[in-house]
Amino acid sequence: MKSGSERLAAALFAPQSIALIGASGDAKKNTSRPQRFLRKHGYAGRIVPVNPGRDEIFGEKSYPDLKSVPGSIDHAFIMVPTDAVAAALEQCAEKKVPVATIYSDGFAETGEAGRRKQQRLIEIARAGNVRVLGPNCIGLFSGNPPCSLSVNAVLEQLDIKPGPYAIVSQSGSMMGGLLSRGLGRGAGFSKLVSVGNECDLGVGEITDCLVDDPHTGAILLFLETIRGADLLARAARRAFDAGKPVVVYKLGRSAVGQDLAASHTGAMAGADEVADAFFRAHGMLRVDTLENLFELPALVAGQKPARRHRVAVMTTTGGGAATVADRLGTLGLDVVPPSGEVIANLARRSIKISPARLTDLTLAGAKKEIYGAVVQELLASDHCDLVLAVAGSSAQFQPQIAVEPIVEADRHGKPLAVFLAPHAEASLKLLADAGIAAFRTPESCADAIRAWRDWRTPAAAPAPAANQLASAASLLKNMPGKQINEYDACRVFAALGIAAAPSEIIATPEQKTKIVFPVAAKVLSPDVLHKTDAGGVVLGLADAASLAAAAREILRNVAARHPHAKIDGVLVQSMQRGLAEAIVGFRRDPQAGPVVVLGAGGVLAEIYHDIALRLAPIGIEDARAMVGEVKGLAVIRGYRALPRGDCEALAQAVAAMSQLALLKGRAVAEAEINPLIVRPEGQGVAAVDGLIVFREN
Amino acid sequence: MKSGSERLAAALFAPQSIALIGASGDAKKNTSRPQRFLRKHGYAGRIVPVNPGRDEIFGEKSYPDLKSVPGSIDHAFIMVPTDAVAAALEQCAEKKVPVATIYSDGFAETGEAGRRKQQRLIEIARAGNVRVLGPNCIGLFSGNPPCSLSVNAVLEQLDIKPGPYAIVSQSGSMMGGLLSRGLGRGAGFSKLVSVGNECDLGVGEITDCLVDDPHTGAILLFLETIRGADLLARAARRAFDAGKPVVVYKLGRSAVGQDLAASHTGAMAGADEVADAFFRAHGMLRVDTLENLFELPALVAGQKPARRHRVAVMTTTGGGAATVADRLGTLGLDVVPPSGEVIANLARRSIKISPARLTDLTLAGAKKEIYGAVVQELLASDHCDLVLAVAGSSAQFQPQIAVEPIVEADRHGKPLAVFLAPHAEASLKLLADAGIAAFRTPESCADAIRAWRDWRTPAAAPAPAANQLASAASLLKNMPGKQINEYDACRVFAALGIAAAPSEIIATPEQKTKIVFPVAAKVLSPDVLHKTDAGGVVLGLADAASLAAAAREILRNVAARHPHAKIDGVLVQSMQRGLAEAIVGFRRDPQAGPVVVLGAGGVLAEIYHDIALRLAPIGIEDARAMVGEVKGLAVIRGYRALPRGDCEALAQAVAAMSQLALLKGRAVAEAEINPLIVRPEGQGVAAVDGLIVFREN
Repeated sequence: MKSGSERLAAALFAPQSIALIGASGDAKKNTSRPQRFLRKHGYAGRIVPVNPGRDEIFGEKSYPDLKSVPGSIDHAFIMVPTDAVAAALEQCAEKKVPVATIYSDGFAETGEAGRRKQQRLIEIARAGNVRVLGPNCIGLFSGNPPCSLSVNAVLEQLDIKPGPYAIVSQSGSMMGGLLSRGLGRGAGFSKLVSVGNECDLGVGEITDCLVDDPHTGAILLFLETIRGADLLARAARRAFDAGKPVVVYKLGRSAVGQDLAASHTGAMAGADEVADAFFRAHGMLRVDTLENLFELPALVAGQKPARRHRVAVMTTTGGGAATVADRLGTLGLDVVPPSGEVIANLARRSIKISPARLTDLTLAGAKKEIYGAVVQELLASDHCDLVLAVAGSSAQFQPQIAVEPIVEADRHGKPLAVFLAPHAEASLKLLADAGIAAFRTPESCADAIRAWRDWRTPAAAPAPAANQLASAASLLKNMPGKQINEYDACRVFAALGIAAAPSEIIATPEQKTKIVFPVAAKVLSPDVLHKTDAGGVVLGLADAASLAAAAREILRNVAARHPHAKIDGVLVQSMQRGLAEAIVGFRRDPQAGPVVVLGAGGVLAEIYHDIALRLAPIGIEDARAMVGEVKGLAVIRGYRALPRGDCEALAQAVAAMSQLALLKGRAVAEAEINPLIVRPEGQGVAAVDGLIVFREN
Repeated sequence: MKSGSERLAAALFAPQSIALIGASGDAKKNTSRPQRFLRKHGYAGRIVPVNPGRDEIFGEKSYPDLKSVPGSIDHAFIMVPTDAVAAALEQCAEKKVPVATIYSDGFAETGEAGRRKQQRLIEIARAGNVRVLGPNCIGLFSGNPPCSLSVNAVLEQLDIKPGPYAIVSQSGSMMGGLLSRGLGRGAGFSKLVSVGNECDLGVGEITDCLVDDPHTGAILLFLETIRGADLLARAARRAFDAGKPVVVYKLGRSAVGQDLAASHTGAMAGADEVADAFFRAHGMLRVDTLENLFELPALVAGQKPARRHRVAVMTTTGGGAATVADRLGTLGLDVVPPSGEVIANLARRSIKISPARLTDLTLAGAKKEIYGAVVQELLASDHCDLVLAVAGSSAQFQPQIAVEPIVEADRHGKPLAVFLAPHAEASLKLLADAGIAAFRTPESCADAIRAWRDWRTPAAAPAPAANQLASAASLLKNMPGKQINEYDACRVFAALGIAAAPSEIIATPEQKTKIVFPVAAKVLSPDVLHKTDAGGVVLGLADAASLAAAAREILRNVAARHPHAKIDGVLVQSMQRGLAEAIVGFRRDPQAGPVVVLGAGGVLAEIYHDIALRLAPIGIEDARAMVGEVKGLAVIRGYRALPRGDCEALAQAVAAMSQLALLKGRAVAEAEINPLIVRPEGQGVAAVDGLIVFREN
């Protein structure tokens, strides 16, 4: 018996019967296309046009409505005006149609009124057990079995070569462009799915279906946003396990969501970094160049993420190879010279190569036996983890010199990237047919190698720190309000295992403190946001008398400037000195879920956008990697002669903060320690200020 | 009568007679190629093979040596073994051959011995008045008049379409790749020149010849380094005035020269930033993507650098346009919504467009009359300075919908960039034939628009600050040694107009100082590089007694740790407080000449590589722009509620420092003020520490 996901895939891509609701008999209209395209591309099942104004369309009997259609329908394609869609979907529910694809637009993409109409569709679909693709989607295409259920005009002109690539696109209007670009470079396709507004079926569930599709070998996503992160994460991990690369091109690299810009750490962590972290956490490969949707898959086919990323580069054109190698350098990749063993092995065959980083055979080495021997040695050697072979002018008219030896080489399971300096379509085809990753521009070649380097095996979530979470939860349970003050926030951080500067609240200026001097005094009030501006902070108090005087002064200042503020007391805090300040943040990204952020302290994180970010929770390894990524923290990592800070304690604090994602009970929307003082190696860290904001429920 | 440059160009590209020294009769050998290629590509002049072993080669009479050749020779092509090149060149000198192109390799590109051989060639050439192209170059190609004087194998197979592009390449092996890529996209070529090692004729002089070539409309440079910066600068400025864009692709973005990494400011200013500054200063356009060598010229043809850079984007595919617009955002470009007037004008023609940033007509707007009207309105409107038109799937098979209206639009002199979402070779050709810049990838499209934005009219050098330079020169004249200490350096900076912290040298700890307290005391010694480590610095001294004690302590510490150091006294300096610290540097780049650098103070400039750089000298406008570019100086530019620093005084200091390039007399190799204290607005700056290193002569 079929599973739910198998039934869904069958109804989507292999329906036995299709109803075209709103089909037109006017060949000029978009709504006439699905019927024509289905037949043109070999659909073998039953096609039922539904149109109250016609008895017959293009030779098929037409019905006035779905109710009147005899027999069962596996997939309905709805092309009626916006306001008639709900009724059509209701008929699908009545007729127990398992899947409806909605081409009609005018829904969430148009604003609030449309969003309400779309909500109504969701309700009908849920109640009636109909899965919906769209609305506002141009449909889907399956090569095997053939099913071109789409209004995409390119299906009129293009024959779609069968092959292993499946595209899932949030942009319907770009689907034709993607398909035509892929075909233009010899790629073949198994499935194409435009997901539209994703009111029900989204990129995640479609990807999940494709993992099980025997005709699909790589899944290419064109994304504008991330919706249904959990489903996509699950599908991507399944694809990873199945050895099907998920390659993502995502827009929004320069747009920072308004909602993010408003909050604290949020303002630093643009949506794009979150997307990056999301793709990486779940084993997807994100490309920066559009062409790489089609060029990258061959590079990683059959591969797993590598542990090291040493690139060997060989060429007959130094200038041509440098166009790629130079860019690899800017992307932080390491180009390694040939090993002594490679040099010696080749020397035994009378081939002399230089020990330089770039193995440049020059024009003199543009001979099959030389080029072939060198590429073979590099592929076989364990001094490098990827080979980049660059061919010169010969690739255009004399593939036998460099291209054929590349094709014939035993790759020893090592990734092989090829860049051809000239315009050489025939050689590119030769390479593509051999399943070898060949790149049309130096930029896409370098970007692909970068994506390979950034590729990670999806990590298991770290175990919950049960005791710490329980203590934090029990503290939080009793804290009133939407946002909690720095004193209480630091108590929660301490419960999680992050040391805080010793502090105490005094109710009156005269109250004695247990905190060891010198201390700082700060007004504690939910109503005073800018404490320093309000005269609410005094630092470096050496003794009890100074503290009492400062506290009086603080209360007087605040009373004068914020007469209606609720005052919770004066916070007395031990003065902390360290080697650096850091910001540690936690928040829930509206798209990707909980994330943890580490930044350099002060204004650096913001001015230089100098942060490291991961999906939360993370383990200590990831936290250590984050400490290594923040440039401004170089000053505590052994920069020049500066003393090292306690990076390990900082990493532990970041990992501990990320545990907030696992908190039971009152959910934290956002938390931040700013600053977290980092002391010298072995002396730990101390949270000095911070806040916690609860999630609205 | 012809000028020297006209005579050079004639001998290079339009020789009446060519001697092929070392020509081979074996068609398999590279040295047989020039003779064959010259005839194949229509050379009409006299070809004289020179080869002592043959009487005739491919039907032409061959001579044993150049001396034996009757009549005059305009251009000799030398293909003999390395060690025979000098003798061949001597014969050219004897025979008064104006130009020799040397294909032979084994010279400077191979190391020190080769460098000496190359030096010998230069001597022969200078003495004999022969201009030399190469050695280690593959030759040149001229379409009109025809002259294929090259061993480039692509001339065997390719017919070279005539057209306005001239390529000058430092990489010989990449010339075939570049040519084939250009031809592959329909470009036509006027001249191709491989310059090899540039022992005499370099990219600059060749470019200069091309400025005067009536068949050349755009000059495309493939560079690995900058040699002969002055000649290239002059040629580029002439090309700019002649309206011929010079488009540069330069390698070395990730390599930082060893010699630079060793010095102070030098370590921060990578060679690549210098190259960027050089190209920009002289009106060239640098591209980041290889393809843009061929795609960019049409965008800037007939244009001058724009004052503003507002981009209007229109499309029928939102996703497709976003691939470019998103990238424009990451490159810092401003995409502007249509003006009210544009919207109103279109509304009068019943075309409703949204006021959003992206003018997305959607599939519904994929009609010739709509697309055409919108592109026309945008081109005519003054709310934007460049129009980016993105066409969707229709561009592949229905050019009449979007591509033809683009071609037919009146551009009103405004730059127009076109990106086609699908693979659409025929439409690309249509656009190329109409002289419209069409891009194959979103990345190259965005890169071209970025290059257009960065394009500048070459500025005239600022006038020398004569009085300041004279005072600085007279101070420097009397300063001994290769490097001068911070006290003297600050005096020189002060002479240039950069205020320094008041300071004085005391010879003994007991000597009274005129400097107002509080002061700092520092050991003054050319032999103590790390003064703080040596116990040679004490800050914040409040009175004479403290100063005397500190000076004694300093001298004791230094005597203990550096017993042999020459001590010039103790520097007493007024303590300075400011809002920020900056580093201002001057140095002579070995390739591009004098540069001025501004960085944030402390370790920021280095950790974040946060600098601004210009060729020196600069005027105040450029200096102000530099102050605006350094991210870390945001803190004094009105960031959040922070007080503003004296940015104008800082800019004046940078401009003053850059005047060192104009200094007569002892030349300064490198100078640095670190730190320069920036005080609040209106209160100036103060140099606190610095150094000056003289140029070795």
